[in-house]
Amino acid sequence: MSLPQNMQINGVRLWQSLMDMARIGATPRGGVCRLALTDLDKQGRDLFVQWCEEAGCTITVDAIGNIFARRPGRNDDLPPVVMGSHLDSQPTGGKYDGVYGVLAGLEVIRSLNDMNYVTEAPVEVAVWTNEEGSRFAPAMVASGVFAGVFDLEYGLSRTDLDGKTMGEELARIGYAGDAPVGGRKIGAYFEAHIEQGPILEAEGKTIGVVTDCQGQRWYEITLTGQEAHAGPTPMLRRKDALLGAARMVETVNRIGLKYGPSACATVGMMQVHPNSRNVIPGEVFFTVDFRHPDDAILAKMDEELRRAAEEVASGIGLEMEFEQIWYYAPIKFDESCVSAVRLGVERTGHSFRDIVSGAGHDACYLSMVAPTGMIFIPCVDGISHNEIEETTPAWAAAGCEVLLHAVVERANAEGAKAS
Amino acid sequence: MSLPQNMQINGVRLWQSLMDMARIGATPRGGVCRLALTDLDKQGRDLFVQWCEEAGCTITVDAIGNIFARRPGRNDDLPPVVMGSHLDSQPTGGKYDGVYGVLAGLEVIRSLNDMNYVTEAPVEVAVWTNEEGSRFAPAMVASGVFAGVFDLEYGLSRTDLDGKTMGEELARIGYAGDAPVGGRKIGAYFEAHIEQGPILEAEGKTIGVVTDCQGQRWYEITLTGQEAHAGPTPMLRRKDALLGAARMVETVNRIGLKYGPSACATVGMMQVHPNSRNVIPGEVFFTVDFRHPDDAILAKMDEELRRAAEEVASGIGLEMEFEQIWYYAPIKFDESCVSAVRLGVERTGHSFRDIVSGAGHDACYLSMVAPTGMIFIPCVDGISHNEIEETTPAWAAAGCEVLLHAVVERANAEGAKAS
Repeated sequence: MSLPQNMQINGVRLWQSLMDMARIGATPRGGVCRLALTDLDKQGRDLFVQWCEEAGCTITVDAIGNIFARRPGRNDDLPPVVMGSHLDSQPTGGKYDGVYGVLAGLEVIRSLNDMNYVTEAPVEVAVWTNEEGSRFAPAMVASGVFAGVFDLEYGLSRTDLDGKTMGEELARIGYAGDAPVGGRKIGAYFEAHIEQGPILEAEGKTIGVVTDCQGQRWYEITLTGQEAHAGPTPMLRRKDALLGAARMVETVNRIGLKYGPSACATVGMMQVHPNSRNVIPGEVFFTVDFRHPDDAILAKMDEELRRAAEEVASGIGLEMEFEQIWYYAPIKFDESCVSAVRLGVERTGHSFRDIVSGAGHDACYLSMVAPTGMIFIPCVDGISHNEIEETTPAWAAAGCEVLLHAVVERANAEGAKAS
Repeated sequence: MSLPQNMQINGVRLWQSLMDMARIGATPRGGVCRLALTDLDKQGRDLFVQWCEEAGCTITVDAIGNIFARRPGRNDDLPPVVMGSHLDSQPTGGKYDGVYGVLAGLEVIRSLNDMNYVTEAPVEVAVWTNEEGSRFAPAMVASGVFAGVFDLEYGLSRTDLDGKTMGEELARIGYAGDAPVGGRKIGAYFEAHIEQGPILEAEGKTIGVVTDCQGQRWYEITLTGQEAHAGPTPMLRRKDALLGAARMVETVNRIGLKYGPSACATVGMMQVHPNSRNVIPGEVFFTVDFRHPDDAILAKMDEELRRAAEEVASGIGLEMEFEQIWYYAPIKFDESCVSAVRLGVERTGHSFRDIVSGAGHDACYLSMVAPTGMIFIPCVDGISHNEIEETTPAWAAAGCEVLLHAVVERANAEGAKAS
């Protein structure tokens, strides 16, 4: 069948659904508290399932509570094209983080229904359990189990602060499904999400074509000098651990700028000892967070950090403990999925730029088992994980339009591949 | 009478007295805990008084417990030349801080006795109450009352953590004397002290001719930027408060080096908010401690700090609160007293250098009411206020020899002035 150039979504309906969902767990300051597998999460899931059933979808729930709402394709044996994200929130979260990707997916299905358009491959909307990791650590655990990063046993045994497991809580709210977790072929996965950063809004772009997800290296560094009286100790005889730490903060910033615009480099935490105003600091502990979409550059940043740290420490005469405590490889999203998103942008005419995700998403795990792409829309001032998180109806509609085009393109391509 | 070129002190006796005094309040790790106006302080005072009486001195105690042991001069109406320091210690203090200046003074008197040498003006040894300020804040309170910086009522009403006042405790241990505090003419005041810094030992000098006591300016600075996620926030869009603070630490160090060797510049305390490893710091509080013996240079350092702080803050786009919370003017010790110390160094042939005191001493207050000089001797590794505080018998003897010459010079000069 010919490509549907003039497909539309219903932006008003999408926004209304976002607002309706936001009532579940609404907080006084305009945000949402809907922690994973709570009664409120159940209410949100129930509402989503009801909407999907009204849209004619078949619901499947897997053993870790991931929900799949399926709209059949012309050839229902083809691997489905899946859209999705999560419905759980941070304790003081916003109305869009996760929810947007789920309800944009639902709006795609509703719009296909409105147009009586049948895609070649089936189309699904997925809700991934416990993406935020606020109630049960780690984050993205259920998409991780789906992708084979964690085993099911591990996922179900995650406990909250009260000692309740994900398995118990899934059963309690009625979302411990029968379907196996993962193990089936997915034609493509698309996740629409608010950017959670300031770039799109600042540059006046409506759509972020997400090409990569940053890799991360986290470090803990302790510099030890000589605690001494700030009065009688001459400048040239000092071993000031804070001076060393200050130079490392400047170095980390310099490395981030050098490998920009895609590099991020942050010293977020610092503890000074003894932290007394007239004592030269004898010991400083601090952390470094490096991110880059290119693993080779991340390795260069690592190299420069290590070299600079040695130089800073030996320049002042400090002892150093230096440890990389975490490494997470960068993810390059699938070329054909990124192209499908680009096609959607072209067809809809929205302004756009390529963008790299600085945060982790379910899409990162999905990319290990399926061709995957992501679509970002702007959020106001880049603020997220915050009750004041905000986007606009126009941005939300634009991202959903792009999602529709990308999904239809891929779903029909699955048919072309099969024929 | 002719100047006594070959005067000697008894270094063995001086060291023995230091060791005897160190038994009172001795700690297991080789230090001393003899807090002001405790039973142990009373024992130390009693031993000192006993030694002075054995040396033929007359004892006077003033209303705030300062002790004066007087050896008459040829003309006993002349203003006395006073030596002294303090016998109280830090909770985990050493054997020399304060005690050395008192017992070096006693050794000068004993040596004058040995030589049957009578100075023109009388010579006294003073013990100043509660110099450390560990039990009763502030430090140097009794020499401060003597110098008219505080009134007597204020001094006597200082309370310890148990609510006991200095007045009560003075009465309890029998050192609430009858003599008025201050108000009498002093010809000159000399205080011998361990350096409490590393300069003399590091440069192989035995005597520090103390020319000045540093002035101080203390600051509190808060930089406020924008708390943001370390992942999706590009380097060029950050307002990183810790980057600003790091630049200020480097600036403070640069200012210290620029106005060295006499300048000291320290950031001792820093608090980072929210202090989370993947959040760009939104707010950082830190302190600055500036010291210099020249008030004009201290003012220049202040100017440069303010200018740099403005530049750093505006360069990153940070808000700033900047407050100078404390100012203490530099003290220049009396020319003729410094010359008397230099004369002592020349006569004894000890290696020396001019030096500035980075810490406060009773001599700082005394300098407001009497021509004052100080003599420093090295302490091992510059360590003080610590049970491992250490000096050597040779250094202790050398400082005492210089003190003897300076005191005799000044006591005889008082006679010459009077005649």
